[in-house]
Amino acid sequence: MAKEITSRSENYSDWYIDIVKRANLADNSAVRGCMVIKPYGFAIWENIRDQLDKMFKETGHVNAYFPLFIPKSFLSKEAQHVAGFAKECAVVTHHRLMNDPDGGGIIVDPDSKLEEELIVRPTSETIIWDTYRTWINSYRDLPLLINQWANVVRWEMRTRLFLRTTEFLWQEGHTAHATKEEAVEETLKILDIYATFAEEYMAMPVIRGIKTANERFAGAEETYCIEALMQDGKALQAGTSHFLGQNFAKAFDVKFLNENNQQEYVWATSWGVSTRLMGGLIMTHSDDDGLVVPPKLAPTQVVIVPIPKPSPVIDEVVHKIMAALKAKGIRVKYDMDMKNRPGFKFAEHEMHGIPVRLAIGERDLANGQVEVARRDTKEKTQQPLEGIEQYIEDLLVEIQANLFNRAKAMRDQYITKVDNFNDFEEVINRDIPGFISAHWDGTTETEEKIKELTKATIRCIPLDAEAEDGSCVLTGKPSQRRVLFAKAY
Amino acid sequence: MAKEITSRSENYSDWYIDIVKRANLADNSAVRGCMVIKPYGFAIWENIRDQLDKMFKETGHVNAYFPLFIPKSFLSKEAQHVAGFAKECAVVTHHRLMNDPDGGGIIVDPDSKLEEELIVRPTSETIIWDTYRTWINSYRDLPLLINQWANVVRWEMRTRLFLRTTEFLWQEGHTAHATKEEAVEETLKILDIYATFAEEYMAMPVIRGIKTANERFAGAEETYCIEALMQDGKALQAGTSHFLGQNFAKAFDVKFLNENNQQEYVWATSWGVSTRLMGGLIMTHSDDDGLVVPPKLAPTQVVIVPIPKPSPVIDEVVHKIMAALKAKGIRVKYDMDMKNRPGFKFAEHEMHGIPVRLAIGERDLANGQVEVARRDTKEKTQQPLEGIEQYIEDLLVEIQANLFNRAKAMRDQYITKVDNFNDFEEVINRDIPGFISAHWDGTTETEEKIKELTKATIRCIPLDAEAEDGSCVLTGKPSQRRVLFAKAY
Repeated sequence: MAKEITSRSENYSDWYIDIVKRANLADNSAVRGCMVIKPYGFAIWENIRDQLDKMFKETGHVNAYFPLFIPKSFLSKEAQHVAGFAKECAVVTHHRLMNDPDGGGIIVDPDSKLEEELIVRPTSETIIWDTYRTWINSYRDLPLLINQWANVVRWEMRTRLFLRTTEFLWQEGHTAHATKEEAVEETLKILDIYATFAEEYMAMPVIRGIKTANERFAGAEETYCIEALMQDGKALQAGTSHFLGQNFAKAFDVKFLNENNQQEYVWATSWGVSTRLMGGLIMTHSDDDGLVVPPKLAPTQVVIVPIPKPSPVIDEVVHKIMAALKAKGIRVKYDMDMKNRPGFKFAEHEMHGIPVRLAIGERDLANGQVEVARRDTKEKTQQPLEGIEQYIEDLLVEIQANLFNRAKAMRDQYITKVDNFNDFEEVINRDIPGFISAHWDGTTETEEKIKELTKATIRCIPLDAEAEDGSCVLTGKPSQRRVLFAKAY
Repeated sequence: MAKEITSRSENYSDWYIDIVKRANLADNSAVRGCMVIKPYGFAIWENIRDQLDKMFKETGHVNAYFPLFIPKSFLSKEAQHVAGFAKECAVVTHHRLMNDPDGGGIIVDPDSKLEEELIVRPTSETIIWDTYRTWINSYRDLPLLINQWANVVRWEMRTRLFLRTTEFLWQEGHTAHATKEEAVEETLKILDIYATFAEEYMAMPVIRGIKTANERFAGAEETYCIEALMQDGKALQAGTSHFLGQNFAKAFDVKFLNENNQQEYVWATSWGVSTRLMGGLIMTHSDDDGLVVPPKLAPTQVVIVPIPKPSPVIDEVVHKIMAALKAKGIRVKYDMDMKNRPGFKFAEHEMHGIPVRLAIGERDLANGQVEVARRDTKEKTQQPLEGIEQYIEDLLVEIQANLFNRAKAMRDQYITKVDNFNDFEEVINRDIPGFISAHWDGTTETEEKIKELTKATIRCIPLDAEAEDGSCVLTGKPSQRRVLFAKAY
């Protein structure tokens, strides 16, 4: 079964879609560009969501919920913001259907036209800042640290499951602060949460950086991001955290009385990660046999397969092992299916990326042993039944670490320093181009020219980039530090 | 502060809205009929959601996510279904905005008209059953037990925070089964989960019943419901569980190969509860001093107020108490605010319905005592500091039970047996009408006539209604059991 998917070397895009479908993560739907997230995919997303939610709450954030619809006039209030989103939004214009009096079936009732069109939220800064105006009066009301988990819609022309879909799920944080310093600090605190989550839970190494003006969020003063490298050498923007300055406060007239009794505009941030992370998870770890899920996010961490099928002797041992694993908080399942043979089951569990598989037969038991297979390395070993729960607990930690280290080694291998445009073009056209670390003259013009010539964009100016005098890889103009270019999802 | 809300006796509707706003549960938004759920309200909703989610998962259900949009043609495939929802749906007709070439600001780009209009889901049977067609082939694929937590939109003309809003949050379960018996069993299993949740967590007594044909979900063969009674004697439908027969399977051509190798249509259920439950929670327990939240759902179960303000001596004791309470899994907060006086704090915590308040002053401590106030009865007592954590743990259990018993006594008091229409009119026009238990001749005509005359609807035929010969309260025609009438939200 496992071999029915395209191999990565054959066609990485097809491989990706095959994994998404065969591992039961998501499906296309009848609605253009919208996906159905299937139960197994959703279970992984729930683990992502619950962990992030915990991290947000531990840093003082609370959840709320704002309307799905945004009046058209709201979107228009912040000039850059509307320019950024106007071209890709779903517009609600009517509120009723009716039977066609001419017999044409069900039609939109023309009498139900809305006075003002509503936009299905592509992001919620506008409706939220319109609300904050009534919530914020004095410095005592600040900071306001609010997050929401929601669906948003952007009318994308080219879609791909999880990576770019018309509707997607995300969280969007929207905070309000009394000072610029505090807002910038919040922006960076969230960037840190995102990077920590990506590395410690998704086992996906990321580079923290700042976006160029050209790649900034529409309405932000500064956009911070985490960028990851996929196995095919393309970059994935995995999360963004925006310092919004006073732009939205001014657009929606949100002022507060400061401690000196003066009116001031409020300082803002917004930040988000989405179901796109699922795409990053897949393309960081998975292989030609299917999905690989890091233990911390795996809905099932350990699966037990009876050899060749359940029997009273095997069942009794399995239930003991399961109880011991569950007592350690390990998520374990017993594959009691009677119809399929072990080989089929092995392939299915590999396809779904379950980190550890135990195979238990009566002969093994007679020897006091079980077979342990790890999904990351495909290694199989015989292990003593005695103390197996501790072995597995340690193994899950080791797998989590191994996945991160392996991905980091790959990522580090594919960061290439380049100092002239010939080399730039050679590297960016490799099968696995990776990140190119190069000097850039700081102008949008050069950035766009490079994109036009190579399809590479500036992914970010790394936060840890060291000062280094150099000259722009395209124009030769002076530059003080390297930025990271890549082709990107 | 607490007295700034309308009293229940003065105007129950105004009281309700005052509670919702003053207890920071929700706000109206700039978008017609859509609400903003504020952080405190959302924290209660999260507790509702998490507990229900746990109960669904414990009974074998899994979560998934289906698209927000439904093609107009899908909604039209099940005749009753579209008739039920056509009059109240948000219709997406375009996918782009543009600058008005005539200088009128941002307008909808007429060139972005969709070939087929999309409806923002009012409920997801159609898009889900269209998907199930590709997921279900054989009896081995059944049952399919899927739930989703989502936002839905129904273009309501008269809205009220939580109770009836254009957009609301809910869960909708959609299950597929091989047999009618199994689907009916699922419908009832869910009704049982809803009733258990309402009574054990919300402390809201409910009556389990069946809806009349007239009140059935659009597209269902049978709708089961839980009905609660609010303090003003009006009923609230708190959850519904539908046996859909093969209606959606036929509309979307979803067949499976049974064990005898024959094609059959799949049997379906759907079921949901929504943010409307928040309205039920408020109107079951709260009073003229504010919200009352049952301990099991309270974001903060215990608040500690230092008298008159924090001090090193008080803080030390408070931190010990908090640690002891947290170790018991009790959610506790210390109100360390330095600006407001205890009286103000007491009123605020009462307004927010925190079940237990401890007031701790240095004089109390010298006596080895603390003051404990319970929100439900307003009772204040001095309790020994020694063993206070056990006292509080027990008290929370007692409060939970007391809220339920109190609400049940009230509900039971307001179920009136009525045997003629004069009495029916007298009871239904009382200040607190409650449920009327009466005979009905079983016709939609009589049901609608009674509604027209009295505004009362048949809330349900209780599942535990005993066989009893009688005659219809309006027409005198024979009837075999009583049904429950009420004015309803």
